[in-house]
Amino acid sequence: MDYRLSRRMGEMRPSAVREILKATEQPEMISFAGGLPAPECFPVAEIAACAERVLAESGAQALQYAVTEGYGPLREKFAAEMRGRGVGGTRVENILVTSGSQQGLDLIAKVLLDPGDCVLTESPTYLAAIQAFQAYEARFAAVRTDAWGLVPEALEAAIVRERPKLLYVIPNFQNPTGITLAAERRRTIYELAARHGLVVVEDDPYGKLRYRGENIAPIAALDQAGIVLYVSTVSKTITPGLRVGWVAGHEKLLRSLGIAKQAADLHTSNIDQRIVDRYLTDFDGEAHIERIRALYGARFALMEQCLSETMPEGYEWTHPEGGMFLWVTSPEGVDAGAMLQEAIARKVLFVPGRDFFPDGPTTRSGERYLRLNFSNATEEKIRIGIGRLAEVAGQALAGVAG
Amino acid sequence: MDYRLSRRMGEMRPSAVREILKATEQPEMISFAGGLPAPECFPVAEIAACAERVLAESGAQALQYAVTEGYGPLREKFAAEMRGRGVGGTRVENILVTSGSQQGLDLIAKVLLDPGDCVLTESPTYLAAIQAFQAYEARFAAVRTDAWGLVPEALEAAIVRERPKLLYVIPNFQNPTGITLAAERRRTIYELAARHGLVVVEDDPYGKLRYRGENIAPIAALDQAGIVLYVSTVSKTITPGLRVGWVAGHEKLLRSLGIAKQAADLHTSNIDQRIVDRYLTDFDGEAHIERIRALYGARFALMEQCLSETMPEGYEWTHPEGGMFLWVTSPEGVDAGAMLQEAIARKVLFVPGRDFFPDGPTTRSGERYLRLNFSNATEEKIRIGIGRLAEVAGQALAGVAG
Repeated sequence: MDYRLSRRMGEMRPSAVREILKATEQPEMISFAGGLPAPECFPVAEIAACAERVLAESGAQALQYAVTEGYGPLREKFAAEMRGRGVGGTRVENILVTSGSQQGLDLIAKVLLDPGDCVLTESPTYLAAIQAFQAYEARFAAVRTDAWGLVPEALEAAIVRERPKLLYVIPNFQNPTGITLAAERRRTIYELAARHGLVVVEDDPYGKLRYRGENIAPIAALDQAGIVLYVSTVSKTITPGLRVGWVAGHEKLLRSLGIAKQAADLHTSNIDQRIVDRYLTDFDGEAHIERIRALYGARFALMEQCLSETMPEGYEWTHPEGGMFLWVTSPEGVDAGAMLQEAIARKVLFVPGRDFFPDGPTTRSGERYLRLNFSNATEEKIRIGIGRLAEVAGQALAGVAG
Repeated sequence: MDYRLSRRMGEMRPSAVREILKATEQPEMISFAGGLPAPECFPVAEIAACAERVLAESGAQALQYAVTEGYGPLREKFAAEMRGRGVGGTRVENILVTSGSQQGLDLIAKVLLDPGDCVLTESPTYLAAIQAFQAYEARFAAVRTDAWGLVPEALEAAIVRERPKLLYVIPNFQNPTGITLAAERRRTIYELAARHGLVVVEDDPYGKLRYRGENIAPIAALDQAGIVLYVSTVSKTITPGLRVGWVAGHEKLLRSLGIAKQAADLHTSNIDQRIVDRYLTDFDGEAHIERIRALYGARFALMEQCLSETMPEGYEWTHPEGGMFLWVTSPEGVDAGAMLQEAIARKVLFVPGRDFFPDGPTTRSGERYLRLNFSNATEEKIRIGIGRLAEVAGQALAGVAG
């Protein structure tokens, strides 16, 4: 049978990262490829206690259908979390609980995008956001970035040129680069968006994972016009195995997102929501995040150190203040895709950067990037793995020189 | 701010059922409006035991990100379930685990429908399926039904006339009518679909809830051409609070659905999937369904009896063999929407039929329907509630006569 698929399926590809992750199953492989939290940080005993309490105290309610917008007490907690992050006016009506923050992106696209509508993004940007927007036949326009994130002048030019519907941005410890959008740029970017009536999708899964420097308030904290949709998740701070995220924003947009969610999955797992709510009631979530920060921060510092000590001259990398990723740029002429094959042979994995470019790697330098994850590997594996990667990098460089 | 929403949002409305459900919170209200399972049937202790075991034995894996297609052992179980339902060749590659069967409908629409594509449906049909397809700007064409379900001659005419992309059908104890599609019609309909290259979406949430008559094999059991996507769920047989459903079908279509799911929510709650898998391993799921059948069957028989004893002449209703709903037709001139207001005043709720018609109630008789749910009310409430409804029905009839 020759199925007549929808047009959008012509654009959509399985995630390249997920394909690469299959190689992680090979014995002795050290992987810096995924974006996985460290399982040794999961609060397994606490989640077990919460599941037990939820089912003992309100089992019949927890196992019944639930309202689309989310479990009331959990919405309250996410609203309080938003106020804690600097978004003062957030009330329960401004929160939609989603099945992970990925669903937030899907619903936002569903509510706002018609085929051909333009989405402005950082370039490179989060792969699964590209997929979510592609599913609604969005067109992408990349905005130039530097070490402080999106360049406001480039954004203004893109707004005028592309007449976009959305700006999608990851201000804290961006995936894949690890770069943080500077505070003064957040203000300039917000003002540009507000002036042009552009909706800003602020994706902030990593904001709590800061290892150095000072917290910067989200773009949503500046939002007077009701144009920012802030998306976050408990995947990095509690566990991704429970699919619980949220979207915060203006009530009017949230109502539309709720209608779209009703058609998409009725509601997020009732028991998952109640377990998260219970966890945030009965346990000290902030102290737990402090432990995650200590572990990831040490891994991050070690990876930076190992890169400095072992990588051949000509390779450069970003210096993030938090998150889960480092972004390496190889010297001119060294192709990261070709490097990956050699790396797999030497039992170390990374993700080549090319798939993170929403409009494809538009310059020759698009082939010159490697994304490295440091949250999911032990310190021993980081030492050995970066050693292996440095050998591969040296060989690749020799190949260009030779 | 005047948000520029996508075109599809112009079509989408919040579910009328969900609006009516708000009235269920009034004191003394007896509701036949929702489509809720009976909470006294939820296996709370068993789910608690499963959660405990999953977290004790594989907590770190259960709380990590997971593959999009679903937890392997659970896919195996759903494949076995499909074989048990008569779909002989089902293997794990033919199963995609979804976040409830609602997500199955959303993903199918995403993969197959472009704006303006025609979906053939029974009329009336499941409200949230209409919403799922509307979100992709589908056009609906209703196919005539009678007491044995979809009329094959009407289907053939509609295929020729509308050139549809999909046929959406609920063969067992349809929502909202309770009607079952006759076995010989399933074969004729399948053959028509195969001849015209039409994909059939067979939605079967209630198939295991049969109270009388013989099981009929699903349309999927006839599928040689790979054109049937069979959608089901554990919501009615275990619990809807864990959002776990599945789509079964041809590997090629399933791969596209998997790509779409990746962009929609990465994967279904890992812990929910493992709890369901554990439940189906450690407990006798079929014996539990037998208990549900006994309870619902008794409620169903009682509701039929109460309707027979109390409803004024001129009112008629369907005689389902299973499921959760009865469908009442009022006499000519009696408007179910107006009846609802009076019913709310007398503290009894139902859902007026008009919203279940995908293209609107096309005849005057579109206003003459009431959907009654019998699974969620105790026998005492059924007695009292149908008594109240009969009074409202009598008054409405007198209003027409007067």
